[in-house]
Amino acid sequence: MTQFDSRNLSMVMDLYEMTMANGYFLAGKAQSQATFDVFYRRNPDGGGFAVFAGLEQVLDYLEGLHFSAEDVAYLRSLGQFDGAFLDTLIDYRFRGSVSAVPEGTVVYPNEPLITVTAPLMDAQLVETAILAQINHQSLIATKARRIVRAAEGRSVSDFGARRAHNMDAAVYGARAAYIGGVDSTATVLAGQLFGIPVSGTMAHSWVMSHDSEFEAFRRFAEIYPDNAILLVDTYDTLKSGVPSAIRTAREVLAPMGRRLKGIRLDSGDLAYLSKEARRMLDDAGLADCRIAVSNSLDEYTIRSLLEQGACVDFFGVGERLATAKSDPVFGCVYKLVALNEGTACRPRIKISETWEKITNPGRKRLWRVYDTSGHSIADLLTREDETPDAAAGFGYVDSEKPWKRGAFAGCTVKELQEEVMRGGRRTRPSPPLKAVRDHVRRQLEEDVWPEEQRFENPHRHYLDLSPAFYDLKRSLLGQG
Amino acid sequence: MTQFDSRNLSMVMDLYEMTMANGYFLAGKAQSQATFDVFYRRNPDGGGFAVFAGLEQVLDYLEGLHFSAEDVAYLRSLGQFDGAFLDTLIDYRFRGSVSAVPEGTVVYPNEPLITVTAPLMDAQLVETAILAQINHQSLIATKARRIVRAAEGRSVSDFGARRAHNMDAAVYGARAAYIGGVDSTATVLAGQLFGIPVSGTMAHSWVMSHDSEFEAFRRFAEIYPDNAILLVDTYDTLKSGVPSAIRTAREVLAPMGRRLKGIRLDSGDLAYLSKEARRMLDDAGLADCRIAVSNSLDEYTIRSLLEQGACVDFFGVGERLATAKSDPVFGCVYKLVALNEGTACRPRIKISETWEKITNPGRKRLWRVYDTSGHSIADLLTREDETPDAAAGFGYVDSEKPWKRGAFAGCTVKELQEEVMRGGRRTRPSPPLKAVRDHVRRQLEEDVWPEEQRFENPHRHYLDLSPAFYDLKRSLLGQG
Repeated sequence: MTQFDSRNLSMVMDLYEMTMANGYFLAGKAQSQATFDVFYRRNPDGGGFAVFAGLEQVLDYLEGLHFSAEDVAYLRSLGQFDGAFLDTLIDYRFRGSVSAVPEGTVVYPNEPLITVTAPLMDAQLVETAILAQINHQSLIATKARRIVRAAEGRSVSDFGARRAHNMDAAVYGARAAYIGGVDSTATVLAGQLFGIPVSGTMAHSWVMSHDSEFEAFRRFAEIYPDNAILLVDTYDTLKSGVPSAIRTAREVLAPMGRRLKGIRLDSGDLAYLSKEARRMLDDAGLADCRIAVSNSLDEYTIRSLLEQGACVDFFGVGERLATAKSDPVFGCVYKLVALNEGTACRPRIKISETWEKITNPGRKRLWRVYDTSGHSIADLLTREDETPDAAAGFGYVDSEKPWKRGAFAGCTVKELQEEVMRGGRRTRPSPPLKAVRDHVRRQLEEDVWPEEQRFENPHRHYLDLSPAFYDLKRSLLGQG
Repeated sequence: MTQFDSRNLSMVMDLYEMTMANGYFLAGKAQSQATFDVFYRRNPDGGGFAVFAGLEQVLDYLEGLHFSAEDVAYLRSLGQFDGAFLDTLIDYRFRGSVSAVPEGTVVYPNEPLITVTAPLMDAQLVETAILAQINHQSLIATKARRIVRAAEGRSVSDFGARRAHNMDAAVYGARAAYIGGVDSTATVLAGQLFGIPVSGTMAHSWVMSHDSEFEAFRRFAEIYPDNAILLVDTYDTLKSGVPSAIRTAREVLAPMGRRLKGIRLDSGDLAYLSKEARRMLDDAGLADCRIAVSNSLDEYTIRSLLEQGACVDFFGVGERLATAKSDPVFGCVYKLVALNEGTACRPRIKISETWEKITNPGRKRLWRVYDTSGHSIADLLTREDETPDAAAGFGYVDSEKPWKRGAFAGCTVKELQEEVMRGGRRTRPSPPLKAVRDHVRRQLEEDVWPEEQRFENPHRHYLDLSPAFYDLKRSLLGQG
């Protein structure tokens, strides 16, 4: 294997994680139990929610965390770290516990998606890799969900590998897109690793490597009589490509007793071309021949195509999904919220000029509140020792507008985080990817108000604080 | 090692590469020599050029290409491929030749950056991975160059790992950013793999894990007396952070005979805060204490800060560099340009409605033309058998506006592509990363007109065609 095929992901960290770990070691604080929350502050693309993804790879990373002799030698060569500290890295394993919302959960800003409780050194070292993984996969899963929504039930496939930000982005992006609801991916390794259905058509090079477009289609149909989706835009879509596809259906496939599966349009005015192609196919008795389109698609272009009456059965979505082009940064942060000193656990807070940017301190619990129709109407943060009884009536304070208060009554609550790792080991296997994907779809069909799912000015999902939690936060701000 | 630490990048391909390879095999065409060009059509961010990066990893990938028994078993399980074809994969190695412009070359749209000549099957299989690698690294190298230009000589460091699109994007993005001109990276694995200088400061968690900001600074300065850059915005930058840093310089570092290296601002109005902090530090006799800033920086925010007179010595650039947020898609494509049939090499062309999108057919040579001042004034495509004599006078046709013709005289030319792989093996080791980075800087200082480097409406670098090449292209369009 080359350097490029194997890597120690433990070394994917910002230098300052190691700088601080060394400092905690020298200050005698490395073993203090610390708690960090992972949360984000803003939904991508102005949407109403995000889809949480990447947890399985986070747990893989934490279980595999280790430093080789070469890694330690490299760190030693930097001349910044204490020798005794570096010696501890050789046998180092992550010893912490992790609670998290399940992968595929519909989530909202400022709530703890992952909570890491570990010796301060352990908790610090893992910041960068956790964030990179969750930020990437949640970004793509959220984007995919938007695109799938725009497609209104038509098939969507991930075609983005070639424009993804390198190999992991192609592979784990395909995984996240599948969680978000695409039906398949073109990326073979993602199919192999995760069991995602793989799909694909043909490239211009196939057509160009034959003496004529019809000859290219004929050979392809002979080899793949059940699976031929013919790319019809190499020379002239309506004058050459579609007629050649129809001829292939008639002269090659019909004598074999087969039907032409589809054609693909990859350039030009997709609305116009798809309608004309549909008419030509229908007139030729090929009403069952599907039309696939690709070329810089996203939720906005797909919606526009459908509004124009485009005749499309299958969307191949590439660069704008793989890079989340319209908003490519998912902004999860990792903030210290509690630290044990001696036997006492002390909540910590990060102050800011604006109330929204002040962190929610301390160890806490996250609940989702459902009304009698089964829709989720708010999320609720409580202190660690609270169990809200939302049926009988439970007061709350709005987290963004603390002058707004109220009470839940006649509601049910569900705790969102569950312990997924204890003492550095998973508490159970990660769920199958298909179950994660189904979980997303079920929530959006049953739990989440349509008003939160629209693209324009969606309803803001409320994040409320229990009165006891609000009092804790205020007291840490010195206003108690 | 876990699945996550080791992977077979050979399987990072779009399914259709394998579909077509199987088809070429069955059609008896798999061994025909084919030539594919890699080129892009549009500079990111409306810029005047791009920086070519990622070639070393492309060659690593091609040298390592192989399929394991598990890989072949997975492909067999798809039920689409011929058994004899799958059997050939077990011993398969890439057998092609590769010519490319050197890494770090300043490049322009529509010119062949990489040319792969290989059996058709080999050339087809490698499309996706080559594109993903070149698209990602060229994107980030180009973005980094823009950011470094805006910083006008001040230090720039890559802080982007946590918002990069997964692990490879963090690591190879750091490599590309270094090629583009940043001085260091925070990503430890990139430092270890590529010898890039690593840098970092401290996180809010360090400050929050101590009883007071001054206590946090004091401990850090004691541990890192030569390297302390103190993060001053955890509570209140000007009322608490900067005064605590000054106190640390006086009470902790001065008695040790050391100076405070720097402070970092990570939130708030960076222009105002940096000027106020500078004044406070200067008044305290700390004129040599550097000011680092971070927080969603890119070339535009950096230029704005400097126009406002911000006092900044060091920019830590994260998410907007790591994702190339303002334009996150680099659009390299991979197009068949020639195919041997029997003993004849036949050029191939991809037709489009618009002249600019018609590919440049055939095997060809790419030249850069320099005037007597040493500036590059155009690039030139010729047929494979031409060597232009631009000193004596050599005619050309503008590639985008073919009615414009002229002649180079008194110029020198340099061929840009060189053979980097033959028969599936490198012809020489890849150059050191530092040399690639120096190559970028030298070209921009010496070869490239400043008018091509400005952000707004930059001069378009001409790509010209030799008359013989233009005649070939026209003849393939049936206009000969």
